[in-house]
Amino acid sequence: MLPLPKRFFVTAGKAASKVSDLNAFDTALLNAGLSEQNLSSVSSVLPAGIRHVRRRDLPMGTITFCVLAQQRGGEGETISAGIAYGFRDDGFGGYVAEGHMHGTKNSLREVMEWKMGEMAKLRGIKFRRIDYRIEELSIPMDHYGACLAALVFIA
Amino acid sequence: MLPLPKRFFVTAGKAASKVSDLNAFDTALLNAGLSEQNLSSVSSVLPAGIRHVRRRDLPMGTITFCVLAQQRGGEGETISAGIAYGFRDDGFGGYVAEGHMHGTKNSLREVMEWKMGEMAKLRGIKFRRIDYRIEELSIPMDHYGACLAALVFIA
Amino acid sequence: MLPLPKRFFVTAGKAASKVSDLNAFDTALLNAGLSEQNLSSVSSVLPAGIRHVRRRDLPMGTITFCVLAQQRGGEGETISAGIAYGFRDDGFGGYVAEGHMHGTKNSLREVMEWKMGEMAKLRGIKFRRIDYRIEELSIPMDHYGACLAALVFIA
Repeated sequence: MLPLPKRFFVTAGKAASKVSDLNAFDTALLNAGLSEQNLSSVSSVLPAGIRHVRRRDLPMGTITFCVLAQQRGGEGETISAGIAYGFRDDGFGGYVAEGHMHGTKNSLREVMEWKMGEMAKLRGIKFRRIDYRIEELSIPMDHYGACLAALVFIA
Repeated sequence: MLPLPKRFFVTAGKAASKVSDLNAFDTALLNAGLSEQNLSSVSSVLPAGIRHVRRRDLPMGTITFCVLAQQRGGEGETISAGIAYGFRDDGFGGYVAEGHMHGTKNSLREVMEWKMGEMAKLRGIKFRRIDYRIEELSIPMDHYGACLAALVFIA
Repeated sequence: MLPLPKRFFVTAGKAASKVSDLNAFDTALLNAGLSEQNLSSVSSVLPAGIRHVRRRDLPMGTITFCVLAQQRGGEGETISAGIAYGFRDDGFGGYVAEGHMHGTKNSLREVMEWKMGEMAKLRGIKFRRIDYRIEELSIPMDHYGACLAALVFIA
Protein backbone atom coordinates (compact mmCIF):
# COMPACT_ATOMS: atom_id res chain seq x y z
CA MET A 1 0.00 0.00 0.00
CA LEU A 2 1.34 3.39 -0.94
CA PRO A 3 4.87 2.28 -1.74
CA LEU A 4 7.45 5.07 -1.92
CA PRO A 5 10.01 4.68 -4.72
CA LYS A 6 13.61 5.04 -3.54
CA ARG A 7 15.46 4.95 -6.87
CA PHE A 8 14.73 5.42 -10.55
CA PHE A 9 16.38 5.00 -13.89
CA VAL A 10 15.54 6.32 -17.35
CA THR A 11 15.62 4.27 -20.50
CA ALA A 12 14.38 4.43 -24.08
CA GLY A 13 14.09 2.32 -27.20
CA LYS A 14 12.91 2.39 -30.79
CA ALA A 15 12.30 -0.13 -33.53
CA ALA A 16 10.87 -0.65 -36.99
CA SER A 17 8.98 -3.79 -37.99
CA LYS A 18 7.57 -5.19 -41.21
CA VAL A 19 4.99 -7.14 -39.23
CA SER A 20 2.96 -4.73 -37.07
CA ASP A 21 3.21 -1.70 -34.83
CA LEU A 22 2.73 -4.03 -31.84
CA ASN A 23 5.82 -5.93 -32.95
CA ALA A 24 7.76 -2.67 -33.32
CA PHE A 25 6.64 -1.64 -29.83
CA ASP A 26 7.66 -4.98 -28.34
CA THR A 27 11.08 -4.70 -29.99
CA ALA A 28 11.47 -1.17 -28.65
CA LEU A 29 10.62 -2.47 -25.16
CA LEU A 30 13.29 -5.14 -25.61
CA ASN A 31 15.82 -2.49 -26.64
CA ALA A 32 14.89 -0.43 -23.62
CA GLY A 33 15.39 -3.43 -21.32
CA LEU A 34 11.74 -3.47 -20.26
CA SER A 35 10.34 -6.44 -22.20
CA GLU A 36 10.49 -8.84 -19.25
CA GLN A 37 8.55 -6.72 -16.76
CA ASN A 38 4.89 -6.30 -15.88
CA LEU A 39 4.63 -2.56 -16.49
CA SER A 40 2.12 -0.39 -14.65
CA SER A 41 1.86 3.29 -15.64
CA VAL A 42 1.72 5.97 -12.98
CA SER A 43 1.80 9.75 -13.02
CA SER A 44 4.81 11.75 -12.55
CA VAL A 45 6.35 12.76 -9.25
CA LEU A 46 9.88 12.18 -7.95
CA PRO A 47 9.84 11.73 -4.15
CA ALA A 48 12.29 13.81 -2.12
CA GLY A 49 15.45 11.80 -1.62
CA ILE A 50 14.95 9.48 -4.60
CA ARG A 51 18.23 8.54 -6.29
CA HIS A 52 18.88 8.43 -10.03
CA VAL A 53 20.68 5.15 -10.83
CA ARG A 54 21.96 3.49 -13.97
CA ARG A 55 19.62 1.32 -16.02
CA ARG A 56 19.59 -2.19 -14.66
CA ASP A 57 17.95 -5.51 -15.32
CA LEU A 58 14.98 -6.10 -13.04
CA PRO A 59 13.86 -9.55 -11.92
CA MET A 60 11.68 -11.06 -14.65
CA GLY A 61 7.96 -10.53 -14.18
CA THR A 62 8.04 -7.99 -11.36
CA ILE A 63 5.21 -5.46 -11.23
CA THR A 64 7.11 -2.34 -12.29
CA PHE A 65 5.74 1.17 -11.85
CA CYS A 66 6.92 3.65 -14.45
CA VAL A 67 6.12 6.82 -16.35
CA LEU A 68 5.88 5.59 -19.93
CA ALA A 69 5.86 7.61 -23.17
CA GLN A 70 5.13 5.84 -26.43
CA GLN A 71 4.38 6.69 -30.03
CA ARG A 72 3.64 4.29 -32.85
CA GLY A 73 3.50 5.12 -36.56
CA GLY A 74 3.48 3.98 -40.17
CA GLU A 75 5.82 4.14 -43.16
CA GLY A 76 7.42 7.46 -43.92
CA GLU A 77 6.38 9.05 -40.64
CA THR A 78 8.73 10.65 -38.15
CA ILE A 79 7.79 9.82 -34.60
CA SER A 80 9.24 10.54 -31.19
CA ALA A 81 8.63 9.76 -27.53
CA GLY A 82 10.42 11.12 -24.50
CA ILE A 83 10.71 11.72 -20.80
CA ALA A 84 11.70 15.00 -19.15
CA TYR A 85 12.55 15.12 -15.46
CA GLY A 86 13.94 17.61 -13.00
CA PHE A 87 14.40 18.17 -9.29
CA ARG A 88 13.07 21.26 -7.52
CA ASP A 89 15.80 23.66 -6.48
CA ASP A 90 14.38 23.73 -2.94
CA GLY A 91 15.18 20.02 -2.47
CA PHE A 92 11.55 18.84 -2.22
CA GLY A 93 11.65 16.15 -4.89
CA GLY A 94 10.83 16.71 -8.53
CA TYR A 95 8.54 16.09 -11.48
CA VAL A 96 8.37 14.06 -14.66
CA ALA A 97 6.71 14.88 -17.98
CA GLU A 98 6.11 12.42 -20.77
CA GLY A 99 5.72 13.43 -24.38
CA HIS A 100 5.01 11.74 -27.70
CA MET A 101 4.21 13.01 -31.17
CA HIS A 102 4.32 12.57 -34.88
CA GLY A 103 7.32 14.85 -35.16
CA THR A 104 11.01 15.26 -34.51
CA LYS A 105 13.03 14.96 -31.33
CA ASN A 106 13.58 18.72 -31.39
CA SER A 107 9.88 19.52 -31.68
CA LEU A 108 9.05 17.14 -28.87
CA ARG A 109 11.79 18.61 -26.70
CA GLU A 110 10.22 22.04 -27.11
CA VAL A 111 6.80 20.71 -26.10
CA MET A 112 8.24 18.96 -23.07
CA GLU A 113 10.29 21.95 -21.99
CA TRP A 114 7.09 23.95 -22.08
CA LYS A 115 5.21 21.26 -20.07
CA MET A 116 7.92 21.25 -17.41
CA GLY A 117 7.79 25.05 -17.31
CA GLU A 118 4.04 24.91 -16.69
CA MET A 119 4.49 22.38 -13.87
CA ALA A 120 7.03 24.68 -12.24
CA LYS A 121 4.90 27.84 -12.63
CA LEU A 122 1.85 26.08 -11.22
CA ARG A 123 3.73 25.18 -8.06
CA GLY A 124 5.79 28.37 -7.86
CA ILE A 125 9.09 26.47 -7.97
CA LYS A 126 12.17 26.26 -10.14
CA PHE A 127 14.00 23.25 -11.48
CA ARG A 128 17.65 22.81 -10.63
CA ARG A 129 18.06 21.35 -14.13
CA ILE A 130 15.86 19.52 -16.62
CA ASP A 131 17.07 16.30 -18.25
CA TYR A 132 15.59 14.78 -21.38
CA ARG A 133 15.62 11.30 -22.83
CA ILE A 134 13.98 11.28 -26.25
CA GLU A 135 13.91 8.72 -29.05
CA GLU A 136 13.15 9.70 -32.65
CA LEU A 137 12.50 7.41 -35.57
CA SER A 138 12.01 8.01 -39.29
CA ILE A 139 10.04 4.93 -40.23
CA PRO A 140 11.29 3.26 -43.44
CA MET A 141 8.96 2.43 -46.34
CA ASP A 142 6.97 -0.77 -45.83
CA HIS A 143 7.53 -0.71 -42.05
CA TYR A 144 5.73 0.15 -38.87
CA GLY A 145 7.60 1.91 -36.11
CA ALA A 146 7.56 2.62 -32.39
CA CYS A 147 9.47 4.87 -30.01
CA LEU A 148 9.30 4.77 -26.25
CA ALA A 149 10.93 6.31 -23.23
CA ALA A 150 10.36 5.44 -19.59
CA LEU A 151 11.25 6.58 -16.12
CA VAL A 152 11.23 3.42 -14.07
CA PHE A 153 10.70 3.42 -10.31
CA ILE A 154 12.51 0.83 -8.22
CA ALA A 155 12.64 0.08 -4.51
CA MET B 1 1.16 -8.08 -3.75
CA LEU B 2 -2.57 -7.80 -3.46
CA PRO B 3 -2.59 -4.96 -0.97
CA LEU B 4 -5.87 -4.40 0.87
CA PRO B 5 -6.78 -0.73 1.40
CA LYS B 6 -7.70 0.10 5.01
CA ARG B 7 -8.84 3.71 4.62
CA PHE B 8 -10.00 6.06 1.89
CA PHE B 9 -10.79 9.70 1.37
CA VAL B 10 -12.66 11.54 -1.36
CA THR B 11 -11.50 14.74 -2.98
CA ALA B 12 -12.20 16.85 -6.05
CA GLY B 13 -10.90 19.85 -7.94
CA LYS B 14 -11.53 22.03 -10.96
CA ALA B 15 -9.68 24.70 -12.86
CA ALA B 16 -9.68 26.83 -15.98
CA SER B 17 -6.51 27.67 -17.90
CA LYS B 18 -5.62 29.94 -20.80
CA VAL B 19 -2.69 27.68 -21.66
CA SER B 20 -3.97 24.13 -22.25
CA ASP B 21 -6.33 21.49 -20.95
CA LEU B 22 -3.30 19.65 -19.47
CA ASN B 23 -2.52 22.77 -17.47
CA ALA B 24 -6.14 22.98 -16.31
CA PHE B 25 -6.02 19.33 -15.31
CA ASP B 26 -2.75 19.79 -13.38
CA THR B 27 -4.22 22.78 -11.56
CA ALA B 28 -7.34 20.77 -10.70
CA LEU B 29 -5.07 18.01 -9.32
CA LEU B 30 -3.29 20.65 -7.22
CA ASN B 31 -6.65 21.90 -5.91
CA ALA B 32 -7.64 18.35 -5.07
CA GLY B 33 -4.39 17.82 -3.15
CA LEU B 34 -3.22 15.09 -5.54
CA SER B 35 -0.56 16.85 -7.61
CA GLU B 36 2.37 15.43 -5.64
CA GLN B 37 1.44 11.74 -5.94
CA ASN B 38 2.14 9.00 -8.47
CA LEU B 39 -1.47 8.11 -9.25
CA SER B 40 -2.49 4.64 -10.40
CA SER B 41 -6.13 4.07 -11.40
CA VAL B 42 -7.99 1.02 -10.17
CA SER B 43 -11.58 -0.16 -10.38
CA SER B 44 -14.06 0.37 -7.79
CA VAL B 45 -14.59 -1.76 -4.70
CA LEU B 46 -14.58 -0.76 -1.02
CA PRO B 47 -13.24 -3.61 1.13
CA ALA B 48 -15.28 -4.63 4.15
CA GLY B 49 -14.06 -2.70 7.17
CA ILE B 50 -12.45 0.15 5.22
CA ARG B 51 -12.75 3.50 6.97
CA HIS B 52 -13.69 6.83 5.41
CA VAL B 53 -11.23 9.45 6.64
CA ARG B 54 -10.72 13.15 5.98
CA ARG B 55 -8.62 14.26 3.02
CA ARG B 56 -4.98 14.33 3.99
CA ASP B 57 -1.60 15.11 2.50
CA LEU B 58 0.18 11.96 1.42
CA PRO B 59 3.98 11.64 1.34
CA MET B 60 5.28 13.15 -1.92
CA GLY B 61 5.77 10.66 -4.72
CA THR B 62 4.03 7.65 -3.19
CA ILE B 63 2.35 5.23 -5.59
CA THR B 64 -1.29 6.03 -4.83
CA PHE B 65 -4.17 3.81 -5.94
CA CYS B 66 -7.39 5.65 -6.62
CA VAL B 67 -10.64 5.67 -8.55
CA LEU B 68 -10.29 8.77 -10.71
CA ALA B 69 -12.95 10.63 -12.70
CA GLN B 70 -11.89 13.41 -15.05
CA GLN B 71 -13.37 15.57 -17.76
CA ARG B 72 -11.62 18.20 -19.84
CA GLY B 73 -13.25 20.73 -22.13
CA GLY B 74 -13.03 23.98 -24.11
CA GLU B 75 -14.46 27.49 -23.91
CA GLY B 76 -18.15 27.81 -23.24
CA GLU B 77 -18.61 24.17 -22.34
CA THR B 78 -20.08 22.92 -19.08
CA ILE B 79 -18.21 19.89 -17.76
CA SER B 80 -18.43 17.74 -14.69
CA ALA B 81 -16.68 14.80 -13.05
CA GLY B 82 -17.65 12.90 -9.95
CA ILE B 83 -17.40 9.94 -7.63
CA ALA B 84 -20.34 8.07 -6.09
CA TYR B 85 -19.79 5.58 -3.30
CA GLY B 86 -21.84 3.54 -0.92
CA PHE B 87 -21.61 0.68 1.54
CA ARG B 88 -23.77 -2.45 1.26
CA ASP B 89 -26.43 -2.63 3.92
CA ASP B 90 -25.32 -6.19 4.77
CA GLY B 91 -21.92 -4.89 5.94
CA PHE B 92 -19.88 -6.59 3.18
CA GLY B 93 -18.00 -3.55 1.92
CA GLY B 94 -19.20 -1.31 -0.87
CA TYR B 95 -18.79 0.04 -4.38
CA VAL B 96 -17.59 3.13 -6.20
CA ALA B 97 -18.76 4.59 -9.50
CA GLU B 98 -16.97 7.30 -11.42
CA GLY B 99 -18.68 9.59 -13.88
CA HIS B 100 -17.72 12.39 -16.23
CA MET B 101 -19.55 14.29 -18.93
CA HIS B 102 -20.04 17.41 -20.93
CA GLY B 103 -22.98 18.41 -18.79
CA THR B 104 -24.10 19.72 -15.43
CA LYS B 105 -23.53 18.36 -11.95
CA ASN B 106 -27.22 17.46 -11.74
CA SER B 107 -27.17 15.48 -15.00
CA LEU B 108 -24.05 13.64 -13.93
CA ARG B 109 -25.55 12.85 -10.55
CA GLU B 110 -28.52 11.22 -12.28
CA VAL B 111 -26.21 9.10 -14.43
CA MET B 112 -24.17 8.04 -11.42
CA GLU B 113 -27.22 7.27 -9.30
CA TRP B 114 -28.34 5.00 -12.11
CA LYS B 115 -24.90 3.35 -12.33
CA MET B 116 -24.91 2.66 -8.60
CA GLY B 117 -28.42 1.24 -8.90
CA GLU B 118 -27.23 -1.14 -11.62
CA MET B 119 -24.29 -2.28 -9.48
CA ALA B 120 -26.67 -3.01 -6.61
CA LYS B 121 -29.21 -4.86 -8.78
CA LEU B 122 -26.50 -6.97 -10.37
CA ARG B 123 -25.34 -8.18 -6.97
CA GLY B 124 -28.79 -8.33 -5.37
CA ILE B 125 -27.82 -5.91 -2.62
CA LYS B 126 -28.88 -2.51 -1.32
CA PHE B 127 -26.82 0.50 -0.38
CA ARG B 128 -27.08 1.88 3.13
CA ARG B 129 -26.64 5.33 1.58
CA ILE B 130 -24.99 6.75 -1.53
CA ASP B 131 -22.63 9.72 -1.25
CA TYR B 132 -21.60 11.93 -4.15
CA ARG B 133 -18.67 14.24 -4.74
CA ILE B 134 -19.08 16.08 -8.03
CA GLU B 135 -17.33 19.10 -9.52
CA GLU B 136 -18.92 21.20 -12.26
CA LEU B 137 -17.30 23.94 -14.31
CA SER B 138 -18.64 26.39 -16.89
CA ILE B 139 -15.51 27.12 -18.84
CA PRO B 140 -15.00 30.86 -19.54
CA MET B 141 -14.34 32.19 -23.06
CA ASP B 142 -10.75 31.81 -24.21
CA HIS B 143 -10.04 29.11 -21.61
CA TYR B 144 -9.65 25.37 -21.31
CA GLY B 145 -11.08 23.59 -18.30
CA ALA B 146 -10.86 20.41 -16.26
CA CYS B 147 -12.87 18.79 -13.48
CA LEU B 148 -11.82 15.78 -11.47
CA ALA B 149 -12.95 13.75 -8.50
CA ALA B 150 -11.13 10.89 -6.83
CA LEU B 151 -11.60 8.25 -4.20
CA VAL B 152 -8.11 7.67 -2.84
CA PHE B 153 -7.10 4.43 -1.13
CA ILE B 154 -4.60 4.58 1.69
CA ALA B 155 -3.03 2.00 3.98
CA MET C 1 7.60 -1.87 -4.51
CA LEU C 2 8.32 -4.19 -7.40
CA PRO C 3 6.21 -7.07 -6.14
CA LEU C 4 6.90 -10.42 -7.82
CA PRO C 5 3.79 -12.53 -8.50
CA LYS C 6 4.07 -16.11 -7.24
CA ARG C 7 0.87 -17.60 -8.65
CA PHE C 8 -1.72 -16.82 -11.31
CA PHE C 9 -5.07 -18.02 -12.49
CA VAL C 10 -7.00 -17.46 -15.70
CA THR C 11 -10.67 -16.62 -15.87
CA ALA C 12 -13.21 -15.28 -18.34
CA GLY C 13 -16.80 -14.10 -18.55
CA LYS C 14 -19.42 -12.76 -20.92
CA ALA C 15 -22.84 -11.18 -20.66
CA ALA C 16 -25.58 -9.43 -22.58
CA SER C 17 -27.58 -6.56 -21.13
CA LYS C 18 -30.62 -4.56 -22.21
CA VAL C 19 -29.39 -1.62 -20.16
CA SER C 20 -25.88 -0.64 -21.30
CA ASP C 21 -22.51 -2.03 -22.32
CA LEU C 22 -21.18 -1.01 -18.90
CA ASN C 23 -23.83 -3.20 -17.31
CA ALA C 24 -22.88 -6.08 -19.63
CA PHE C 25 -19.22 -5.60 -18.72
CA ASP C 26 -20.00 -5.56 -14.98
CA THR C 27 -22.03 -8.74 -15.33
CA ALA C 28 -19.17 -10.38 -17.26
CA LEU C 29 -16.80 -9.38 -14.43
CA LEU C 30 -19.21 -10.97 -11.97
CA ASN C 31 -19.28 -14.17 -14.04
CA ALA C 32 -15.48 -14.18 -14.14
CA GLY C 33 -15.31 -13.82 -10.34
CA LEU C 34 -13.59 -10.42 -10.57
CA SER C 35 -16.39 -8.01 -9.70
CA GLU C 36 -15.28 -7.55 -6.08
CA GLN C 37 -11.65 -6.58 -6.77
CA ASN C 38 -9.85 -3.33 -7.46
CA LEU C 39 -8.33 -4.29 -10.81
CA SER C 40 -5.08 -2.78 -12.07
CA SER C 41 -3.91 -3.69 -15.58
CA VAL C 42 -0.29 -4.63 -16.20
CA SER C 43 1.63 -5.94 -19.18
CA SER C 44 2.35 -9.45 -19.75
CA VAL C 45 5.20 -11.48 -18.31
CA LEU C 46 5.11 -14.69 -16.26
CA PRO C 47 7.99 -14.74 -13.76
CA ALA C 48 10.15 -17.87 -13.64
CA GLY C 49 8.74 -20.23 -11.04
CA ILE C 50 5.22 -18.78 -11.03
CA ARG C 51 2.55 -21.42 -10.48
CA HIS C 52 -0.74 -21.77 -12.36
CA VAL C 53 -3.51 -22.32 -9.84
CA ARG C 54 -7.25 -22.75 -10.02
CA ARG C 55 -9.50 -19.71 -10.07
CA ARG C 56 -10.20 -18.60 -6.55
CA ASP C 57 -12.09 -15.93 -4.68
CA LEU C 58 -9.82 -13.09 -3.62
CA PRO C 59 -10.44 -10.97 -0.54
CA MET C 60 -12.94 -8.23 -1.42
CA GLY C 61 -11.39 -4.94 -2.47
CA THR C 62 -7.76 -6.04 -2.82
CA ILE C 63 -5.67 -4.22 -5.40
CA THR C 64 -5.37 -6.98 -7.99
CA PHE C 65 -2.85 -6.87 -10.84
CA CYS C 66 -3.97 -8.63 -14.00
CA VAL C 67 -3.66 -8.82 -17.76
CA LEU C 68 -7.18 -7.95 -18.91
CA ALA C 69 -8.76 -8.38 -22.34
CA GLN C 70 -12.17 -6.89 -22.99
CA GLN C 71 -14.49 -6.23 -25.89
CA ARG C 72 -17.88 -4.56 -25.81
CA GLY C 73 -20.42 -4.43 -28.63
CA GLY C 74 -23.97 -3.82 -29.79
CA GLU C 75 -26.91 -5.88 -31.07
CA GLY C 76 -26.16 -8.42 -33.73
CA GLU C 77 -22.40 -8.18 -33.35
CA THR C 78 -20.11 -11.10 -32.61
CA ILE C 79 -17.41 -10.16 -30.14
CA SER C 80 -14.60 -12.00 -28.42
CA ALA C 81 -11.87 -11.42 -25.86
CA GLY C 82 -9.12 -13.75 -24.79
CA ILE C 83 -5.85 -14.47 -23.05
CA ALA C 84 -3.02 -16.60 -24.45
CA TYR C 85 -0.15 -17.69 -22.24
CA GLY C 86 2.82 -19.98 -22.45
CA PHE C 87 6.04 -20.84 -20.66
CA ARG C 88 9.43 -20.72 -22.40
CA ASP C 89 10.87 -24.16 -23.04
CA ASP C 90 14.16 -23.07 -21.41
CA GLY C 91 12.40 -22.64 -18.05
CA PHE C 92 12.88 -18.85 -17.83
CA GLY C 93 9.25 -17.89 -17.22
CA GLY C 94 6.77 -17.05 -19.93
CA TYR C 95 4.59 -14.50 -21.68
CA VAL C 96 0.96 -13.44 -21.94
CA ALA C 97 -0.92 -11.94 -24.88
CA GLU C 98 -4.35 -10.38 -24.68
CA GLY C 99 -6.68 -10.09 -27.64
CA HIS C 100 -10.10 -8.65 -28.38
CA MET C 101 -12.08 -8.09 -31.54
CA HIS C 102 -15.37 -7.80 -33.30
CA GLY C 103 -15.11 -11.37 -34.53
CA THR C 104 -15.28 -15.01 -33.61
CA LYS C 105 -13.32 -17.02 -31.09
CA ASN C 106 -11.54 -18.81 -33.93
CA SER C 107 -10.46 -15.58 -35.62
CA LEU C 108 -9.23 -14.19 -32.33
CA ARG C 109 -7.33 -17.38 -31.60
CA GLU C 110 -5.49 -17.03 -34.89
CA VAL C 111 -4.53 -13.45 -34.09
CA MET C 112 -3.32 -14.40 -30.64
CA GLU C 113 -1.38 -17.40 -31.88
CA TRP C 114 0.37 -15.05 -34.24
CA LYS C 115 1.06 -12.54 -31.45
CA MET C 116 2.58 -15.26 -29.27
CA GLY C 117 4.69 -16.40 -32.24
CA GLU C 118 6.03 -12.86 -32.64
CA MET C 119 6.88 -12.61 -28.95
CA ALA C 120 8.83 -15.88 -29.21
CA LYS C 121 10.66 -14.90 -32.40
CA LEU C 122 11.64 -11.53 -30.97
CA ARG C 123 13.29 -13.20 -27.99
CA GLY C 124 14.63 -16.21 -29.89
CA ILE C 125 12.75 -18.66 -27.70
CA LYS C 126 10.11 -21.36 -28.04
CA PHE C 127 7.00 -22.00 -26.00
CA ARG C 128 6.58 -25.34 -24.30
CA ARG C 129 2.87 -25.01 -25.05
CA ILE C 130 0.40 -22.19 -25.56
CA ASP C 131 -2.90 -22.14 -23.68
CA TYR C 132 -5.90 -20.05 -24.63
CA ARG C 133 -8.90 -18.79 -22.73
CA ILE C 134 -11.33 -17.04 -25.06
CA GLU C 135 -14.93 -15.93 -24.67
CA GLU C 136 -17.17 -15.30 -27.67
CA LEU C 137 -20.61 -13.75 -27.69
CA SER C 138 -23.21 -13.22 -30.42
CA ILE C 139 -25.10 -10.29 -29.00
CA PRO C 140 -28.92 -10.71 -29.23
CA MET C 141 -31.15 -8.06 -30.79
CA ASP C 142 -31.94 -5.16 -28.47
CA HIS C 143 -28.96 -5.95 -26.23
CA TYR C 144 -25.46 -4.74 -25.50
CA GLY C 145 -22.74 -7.28 -24.86
CA ALA C 146 -19.31 -7.71 -23.29
CA CYS C 147 -16.65 -10.41 -23.25
CA LEU C 148 -13.59 -10.46 -21.05
CA ALA C 149 -10.72 -12.72 -20.14
CA ALA C 150 -8.05 -12.13 -17.52
CA LEU C 151 -4.83 -13.59 -16.23
CA VAL C 152 -4.81 -12.65 -12.57
CA PHE C 153 -1.59 -12.39 -10.55
CA ILE C 154 -1.67 -13.38 -6.89
CA ALA C 155 0.96 -13.49 -4.16
